[in-house]
Amino acid sequence: MRLSRYLPILDWGRRYNGAAFSSDLMAAVIVTIMLIPQSLAYAMLAGLPPEAGLYASIAPLVAYAIFGTSRALAVGPVAVVSLMTAAAVGQIAETGTIGYATAALTLAFLSGVILLLMGVFQLGFLANFLSHPVISGFITASGVIIAASQLRYLLGVPGGGHTLLDIAVSLSGAVMDTNVYTLAVGAAALGFLLFVRTGLKPLLIRLRLPARAADIITKAGPVFAVAASIGAVVVFDLGAKGVAVVGTVPQGLPPFTLPSFELELVQLLLASAMLISVIGFVESVSVAQTLAAKKRERIDPDQELVALGASNVSASLSGGFPVTGGFARSVVNFDAGAATPAAGAFTAVGILLAAAFLTPLIYHLPVAVLAATIIVAVLSLVDFGALGRAFRYSKADFAAMAATIAVTLVFGVEAGVTVGVILSLALFLYRTSRPHAAVVGQVPGTEHFRNVDRHAVITSPSVVTLRVDESLYFANARYLEDRIYKLIADNPDARHVILMCPAVNFIDMSALESLEAINTRLNSTDVKLHLSEVKGPVMDRLKRSHFLDALTGEVFLSQYEAFAALDPETAKRALADKSV
Amino acid sequence: MRLSRYLPILDWGRRYNGAAFSSDLMAAVIVTIMLIPQSLAYAMLAGLPPEAGLYASIAPLVAYAIFGTSRALAVGPVAVVSLMTAAAVGQIAETGTIGYATAALTLAFLSGVILLLMGVFQLGFLANFLSHPVISGFITASGVIIAASQLRYLLGVPGGGHTLLDIAVSLSGAVMDTNVYTLAVGAAALGFLLFVRTGLKPLLIRLRLPARAADIITKAGPVFAVAASIGAVVVFDLGAKGVAVVGTVPQGLPPFTLPSFELELVQLLLASAMLISVIGFVESVSVAQTLAAKKRERIDPDQELVALGASNVSASLSGGFPVTGGFARSVVNFDAGAATPAAGAFTAVGILLAAAFLTPLIYHLPVAVLAATIIVAVLSLVDFGALGRAFRYSKADFAAMAATIAVTLVFGVEAGVTVGVILSLALFLYRTSRPHAAVVGQVPGTEHFRNVDRHAVITSPSVVTLRVDESLYFANARYLEDRIYKLIADNPDARHVILMCPAVNFIDMSALESLEAINTRLNSTDVKLHLSEVKGPVMDRLKRSHFLDALTGEVFLSQYEAFAALDPETAKRALADKSV
Repeated sequence: MRLSRYLPILDWGRRYNGAAFSSDLMAAVIVTIMLIPQSLAYAMLAGLPPEAGLYASIAPLVAYAIFGTSRALAVGPVAVVSLMTAAAVGQIAETGTIGYATAALTLAFLSGVILLLMGVFQLGFLANFLSHPVISGFITASGVIIAASQLRYLLGVPGGGHTLLDIAVSLSGAVMDTNVYTLAVGAAALGFLLFVRTGLKPLLIRLRLPARAADIITKAGPVFAVAASIGAVVVFDLGAKGVAVVGTVPQGLPPFTLPSFELELVQLLLASAMLISVIGFVESVSVAQTLAAKKRERIDPDQELVALGASNVSASLSGGFPVTGGFARSVVNFDAGAATPAAGAFTAVGILLAAAFLTPLIYHLPVAVLAATIIVAVLSLVDFGALGRAFRYSKADFAAMAATIAVTLVFGVEAGVTVGVILSLALFLYRTSRPHAAVVGQVPGTEHFRNVDRHAVITSPSVVTLRVDESLYFANARYLEDRIYKLIADNPDARHVILMCPAVNFIDMSALESLEAINTRLNSTDVKLHLSEVKGPVMDRLKRSHFLDALTGEVFLSQYEAFAALDPETAKRALADKSV
Repeated sequence: MRLSRYLPILDWGRRYNGAAFSSDLMAAVIVTIMLIPQSLAYAMLAGLPPEAGLYASIAPLVAYAIFGTSRALAVGPVAVVSLMTAAAVGQIAETGTIGYATAALTLAFLSGVILLLMGVFQLGFLANFLSHPVISGFITASGVIIAASQLRYLLGVPGGGHTLLDIAVSLSGAVMDTNVYTLAVGAAALGFLLFVRTGLKPLLIRLRLPARAADIITKAGPVFAVAASIGAVVVFDLGAKGVAVVGTVPQGLPPFTLPSFELELVQLLLASAMLISVIGFVESVSVAQTLAAKKRERIDPDQELVALGASNVSASLSGGFPVTGGFARSVVNFDAGAATPAAGAFTAVGILLAAAFLTPLIYHLPVAVLAATIIVAVLSLVDFGALGRAFRYSKADFAAMAATIAVTLVFGVEAGVTVGVILSLALFLYRTSRPHAAVVGQVPGTEHFRNVDRHAVITSPSVVTLRVDESLYFANARYLEDRIYKLIADNPDARHVILMCPAVNFIDMSALESLEAINTRLNSTDVKLHLSEVKGPVMDRLKRSHFLDALTGEVFLSQYEAFAALDPETAKRALADKSV
């Protein structure tokens, strides 16, 4: 039992049968066809030779099949992580050098080790500190950067840059050198792929094709673009006219590679590896959870960390680069009927066969077509509409999202996600440091108490009740003191202050010291401090301090009890009041 | 009116009179006598020549008198900030060099500018993020380091170090070279000062001296130690026997100095200056608030930032180093009857006279006596008992305090306070990311609902209510999803889930998306999601989203209404139940 928690394959493998095999095989064929051009394209995005993309889609898939808990997740190179790889490795080495490839392997290895450690120490909860607005903003901005970074391949000009500004500067200097043949091929591929994505399926269905056939044809669209463009290059000899092609891709099995263990390189890459791990994990686990929920299955996030860790370590040992679970391909895998993680292993066999036998076929594949594939894929990630939704719902969420987008576009992916996380945490802390607090009065005819500013309620000149809508902790302890002192100054006739605590989930030591200070200070002006509706766990803790001994007033179970004990006349009159 | 907010002197100065003048003058005389040995000692602690301590006690006091809002706060060099200065500047320059003094001036200038900016932008609330356990742990550990760092002067040996480990290593290598005459003088001073602090006043009162006279004699204890030790050095010619003395202190007014504006130095000191600013502000403002509360006065924390900023800038222009409001001297100032900030200005005049005329008198003052003064002063800061109190009250507060103490002792003051702040914030975030949530049932005979695990309550098999005791935000959104899915799995007969929200103070966008996911998922198993007791501001916000349209259930004002609507039979039966 214990072992199968860490090796889920022992669990589903035991019950594996012919029906599952044929479902998995069918899904694997479809995902393989989809994954080949994607792998090549994402390797290019990461600044690596195309074969690295194929290699990163073999061993990691097998590792995930052994350790993973999701039945539909398809692991491999994905757009955002490839961009982050390019940004991290690009600071250290030049594209095309041995050092660049080694740094990418090392990044995958470090990321794998970090994920494994997070899994072993059950630190998956750390990903919860990436808020939805930050993730959504980060992915939108990354999509924009990725699309922009591919424009140079569409134009057939040199260039670079990992931020929108760098890319724009680099492009504006080179745009006059545009190769019209490259542009024609790229634009045609882009137009075709956009049509495939949006218009093809409805058209096929109008042409009376069965839905399933229409679906498969639509998914094979990129493969058709690849085949057609290779044909065009050969027929019109576009290579001689300056259209860049993929060229020679080594034919054979993935090589055995080793990451570098040089301390200096590890130090340079460590922060990037941590960010890639967390972002990759968040992306992967949300896809896995969404798909699992559709079949009423559950995934185990901590075991997912182990599985993604093993995938990345295996990528680093087989000529790959950082990988994670991808959204589009997992959905395809799921829709194609993948029944177990074995589908991933079969996909790996498919890519292995492609690496071994098919690479000569893509010699003439135009790089512009790969760029078009990437652009179409990432445009679906871009969602600026989320900014508007966030703005309407919450200014804090909007600020976090807008800052993440802006910083990512201008300063790059790592700065963007870091600023986003820090800002969203800071906004949360700021919000809890100035808690909502309301003076409350009794609702006529009831034992309920509500905000005096929102409801017609009955109050007493001698008993003032403040309801604090937040746990009391160091960041808001002094705010509470100020609020109560102001309350006393505004209500000179008050003899009792009740602190109503139904929303106080804990009181830390700093706040306890503030309560003691408030108690002492109120006492010196002959005002008693009482508490009402203190939660069980909070009360347990207060009993372990000396606060309750020093408290001048009492602790009441309900606010009505408190009010009735301190101003019985007003409380009874309010209860009898049927005017409202 | 507006101007006097920024220049409080315009307010109290207008009403200044003879009574206030004589009170202030009396307080100034007492504080001056106390401040002279302290200033010399803290300059030594900061690694600076003794006159720097006098200079730092002149202009800054005048600046505070103009801008400050506290009537009793006494500004000048203090132990913790002097230690932080030594730690920061010690990394950059050798003690005794011009570079060291310039760096200390620059540190004061930067710290002053930071404080001024914080004041202008009203960022005083940032200090609230330093929790009491972190401050208390930091001050205890600083006290230990300071006391340990002074041992070498008591022994008359060379040494150094800004962490307990460094100091111990440095001392253990030199302890064999102890100068017995120095040790004798130092030990005598230490014993005498400890006696003065604890035993002298009761003794004098037993000898029938009036309390006020006993008090003044006690406060003059350090001055007596200084005078007696100077006498001993002269009479027994201890200087020739290896007892280190203060030596020549330049006689005259504070010099006009300029901090360095070299970018490299500023960059090296900036982080330290920020820490010193915040720590100094927290120390100063807590003293000021405590003393103001005793007289029912209020201070303005943002204006205090401006005043401390002006003090530090003026310290940097007059040969000083970073200063802040000190606890001991402010209490003395308060007890001696200081009526307005003018008392501080009069103290400045006293120190100015001392710098101009009295410095030849302290030529023979043994350094060991200054060290003894520091040790006795800082021992009152050390409070390891707070660790025990924190442990009993809250493990999280204990962890933050213990970590702050340990890291400060081992890695130094800057690492200590940084780790403390980060850890206390992380613990708060962790706590809110796993909120307390309770399944609740109806208390028989009432409309109240309580935790099923703590109370004998009545529940329904078809209606499950979960009360979440925390605001819902990104860090706990997924936790909430897991909690509700588990609840449904454990209650297969449930047709309704009520989320009871009296302690939910806000729902951010991430949590809203989780609620939407929960709603959809429950709907797919024919379970309806309802909310009850949603707070006004939370409801206002929900109305701005599409969540309420999609919600399968309803939003009820009270939990009883919800329960009565969904399972009227059980609710009525519970209400009629008078068994408890």
